Amino acid sequence: MSDIAPSGTPGEVDRLVQWNEQGLVTAIAQDKATGDVLMVAWANREALAKTLATGKATYWSRSRKKLWTKGEESGYVQLVLEVRTDCDGDALLYLVDAPGPACHQLRRSCFSHRVDRDGSVHTDRPTIA
Amino acid sequence: MSDIAPSGTPGEVDRLVQWNEQGLVTAIAQDKATGDVLMVAWANREALAKTLATGKATYWSRSRKKLWTKGEESGYVQLVLEVRTDCDGDALLYLVDAPGPACHQLRRSCFSHRVDRDGSVHTDRPTIA
Repeated sequence: MSDIAPSGTPGEVDRLVQWNEQGLVTAIAQDKATGDVLMVAWANREALAKTLATGKATYWSRSRKKLWTKGEESGYVQLVLEVRTDCDGDALLYLVDAPGPACHQLRRSCFSHRVDRDGSVHTDRPTIA
Repeated sequence: MSDIAPSGTPGEVDRLVQWNEQGLVTAIAQDKATGDVLMVAWANREALAKTLATGKATYWSRSRKKLWTKGEESGYVQLVLEVRTDCDGDALLYLVDAPGPACHQLRRSCFSHRVDRDGSVHTDRPTIA
């Protein structure tokens, strides 16, 4: 948990990111225009490399055990405008332009459940885009 | 990785959240007013319960192996305006009012490093708040 020290050298992200024991880090997709946090998934080296090369948000699917470019099936591609990492390099933030739903429930964001103080959970009503 | 099905019952968040094998989930702090993603950490049941009870963002520190209410040392408390969870319950989103820096580097957000297409990493210049 020490701070990363970037030098601006091509390719350095690969060693600066603190991949976990499964070779993964948390990857958050955020709508760059609205600030909405859309979803949280995982990325490995290859997913990050593909995201940077193609400009399309790519993750590692732990359930399917394969690279997953968001929208390859649904059509709801996330165009990545910027990639960021945090002070200790254990998370990635994809700032995206993604007009479609990020959630497989066809909601804008996966974070559709509000947790109240009493521990009850309330789901947003569907919205018409 | 199935969708959670909230019923609005007090306390249900405890079973709806998909705590991992260490009893943790990813917890993201986002500035509710500006949309800035401030930091990513971990929460366990106790951290979430304390967050809901006190309205102060509380995490589980894996390095220190203890509950960590943000700001208890730095003074930069994050007041939690809303807690959300995602479709499959494996992440929490704390929407906070936190005028101070979230990062121990005294930056507003921990995500101070931009990753360029060539894999080089560039750190934001310090800003004067």
